[in-house]
Amino acid sequence: MRIIDEAAVEDIALGAAVLGTGGGGDPYVGKLMAREAIRQYGPVELYTLDELDDDDLIVPAAGMGAPIVIVEKLPAGDDMIRAFQALGKYSGRQPRGTMSIEAGGLNSVMPIYVAARLRIPMVDCDGMGRAFPEIQMTIFTAHGITASPFAMSDERGNVLLMDTVSNAWVETFARSCVVHMGAEGMIALYSATVRQLKEASIHGTITLAENIGKTVRNARRAEANPVDAVRAAVDGFLLFRGKITDVDRRIEGGWNKGTAAMGGTGAYAGRELLLDFQNEHLAARIDGEFAATVPDLIAVLDNETGEPITTEALRYGMRVAVIAFPCAPQWREPAALQLAHPRYFGYDVDYVPVEERFG
Amino acid sequence: MRIIDEAAVEDIALGAAVLGTGGGGDPYVGKLMAREAIRQYGPVELYTLDELDDDDLIVPAAGMGAPIVIVEKLPAGDDMIRAFQALGKYSGRQPRGTMSIEAGGLNSVMPIYVAARLRIPMVDCDGMGRAFPEIQMTIFTAHGITASPFAMSDERGNVLLMDTVSNAWVETFARSCVVHMGAEGMIALYSATVRQLKEASIHGTITLAENIGKTVRNARRAEANPVDAVRAAVDGFLLFRGKITDVDRRIEGGWNKGTAAMGGTGAYAGRELLLDFQNEHLAARIDGEFAATVPDLIAVLDNETGEPITTEALRYGMRVAVIAFPCAPQWREPAALQLAHPRYFGYDVDYVPVEERFG
Repeated sequence: MRIIDEAAVEDIALGAAVLGTGGGGDPYVGKLMAREAIRQYGPVELYTLDELDDDDLIVPAAGMGAPIVIVEKLPAGDDMIRAFQALGKYSGRQPRGTMSIEAGGLNSVMPIYVAARLRIPMVDCDGMGRAFPEIQMTIFTAHGITASPFAMSDERGNVLLMDTVSNAWVETFARSCVVHMGAEGMIALYSATVRQLKEASIHGTITLAENIGKTVRNARRAEANPVDAVRAAVDGFLLFRGKITDVDRRIEGGWNKGTAAMGGTGAYAGRELLLDFQNEHLAARIDGEFAATVPDLIAVLDNETGEPITTEALRYGMRVAVIAFPCAPQWREPAALQLAHPRYFGYDVDYVPVEERFG
Repeated sequence: MRIIDEAAVEDIALGAAVLGTGGGGDPYVGKLMAREAIRQYGPVELYTLDELDDDDLIVPAAGMGAPIVIVEKLPAGDDMIRAFQALGKYSGRQPRGTMSIEAGGLNSVMPIYVAARLRIPMVDCDGMGRAFPEIQMTIFTAHGITASPFAMSDERGNVLLMDTVSNAWVETFARSCVVHMGAEGMIALYSATVRQLKEASIHGTITLAENIGKTVRNARRAEANPVDAVRAAVDGFLLFRGKITDVDRRIEGGWNKGTAAMGGTGAYAGRELLLDFQNEHLAARIDGEFAATVPDLIAVLDNETGEPITTEALRYGMRVAVIAFPCAPQWREPAALQLAHPRYFGYDVDYVPVEERFG
């Protein structure tokens, strides 16, 4: 067990923005909430799975909706506690702790808020090792853990509970309801025992996010090249450097969807990178050829500061570096890969691990 | 208490089709289910509110969705029982009986299925005295009874529970989910005690439906004019006789929506009636002038047999009579009227009780 204090929240949020691959919601919002909760209720205890009892029940807590909205409309916090507690009441089992459904973006730090306010442990693992736009896209699903019972609440006080026949049905119903909630709802789901999570989660991802954050912070302090520091911290590859020439962005079905185009600079002059996103980056094409796709991670970094840029912050004229890095190995097992395959997102291509293209 | 047997189901269903004002789902489907349940589990006991204990909890059961779909896709029954039992489990209180949310259409007889299968009483009252397309449009709402906790299930086995801050929010979330259920879901909602229902429901409406059904049946047997018999049984007014010249029908947001046009025959020759519907008939205009609107009831009857015709059965060339009759007086109280006012449905007119126009 180790303590997550306000400083740790800073590093986790920075690293989670890299793992968020442009989406998952800007961790800035979650960071504010987590810091405030730690100030008010005290620091959070982060446990490894081995430090907990195999029968302990862990319930992830998260935000759901269009990141572009969540950033504008700071969650009240009560809605998240309401969803978390409604799930416990419905399932008739007291959760021992909470965790991140996704280590990328906002949802990396949102459970810190829950853990601080309810004085319960947070567990150092998650269900994605990154962020993904749909609820069923988790290593949990690939291992047969159900998203149901599922609880959802909004700022008005509405509570929805779902018990569905598949994780994809939770996605269908919840996505449709979150649109009516103003594209922002707080959720609790994927209750699992520590025993299950030992098999069915990605371990140590909060620590991973924190380490990425620390690396970037140290590089900035040392005036080293922060883009290079991020790339090295995630064992990644530089795909492109350039200037954003066009951003096409819309809210569709409760998601941020769109494409950003970049014209190359320096060694990349004369080339074009097209980046597609659905909350998160899905695929990067350079001069029409796929350079990286889901489930591998693609991050857009500010070329000077190394700061990861979310899809909602992409603007014409920004100078950026695009890096890609391998997903957690669990995503490459068949049951998991089919949940987040490029074909699921409408790309008629095979998945080629990024290190095979650039390694 | 009196017994509802298979013969009574026939009469209730026929009367409920008149009270369904073109919608509420063709009671034929509910009738088949109710008859089958009575055959298998025995007849149902129908109680007046006075025969039950004031503290007894009554939970209405109903189908929700586009009638045009429900007619094609006979509900399995298990989905309705699943919703009813999920609600009892969630609220932690055992329902003593069930009742109709709406005495018009399919949902008049659906609770008979639940009462027979679970061997519980059915109560002789409802929340509308007719059918209406949206969940919050009930006398219950006008009296502060909450639609929450709300349970919904589909044929696949999905279960949704809702605890919302208003009855209109149940409508919003449930309507959005029922679309994904294939426009058909089974629901349990508006739990209330007998004490509450004495104030906040329309009494004797199952008996009313049965009496309308009997009247039509007797008129047919006596070779009397069945249109006239229906009109007399509901204390109504003949608006029009004519031939359907056009039907414009679509499924939109989980509803049947559209308009039917009729050209007058006999005394109505040269005139045109336009009938708008959203699951149920909303308004009838003759030569552009409003003749009747919600919350009063409008029924389209086969000109020969007096058989009520649902909006999904309207066809070019049918010869029909259109009657209108007063809603239950509770609908004319301010809190109720605003829930089902012509303006709520987009008509920029005041509500004029039908008997003031034709009486």
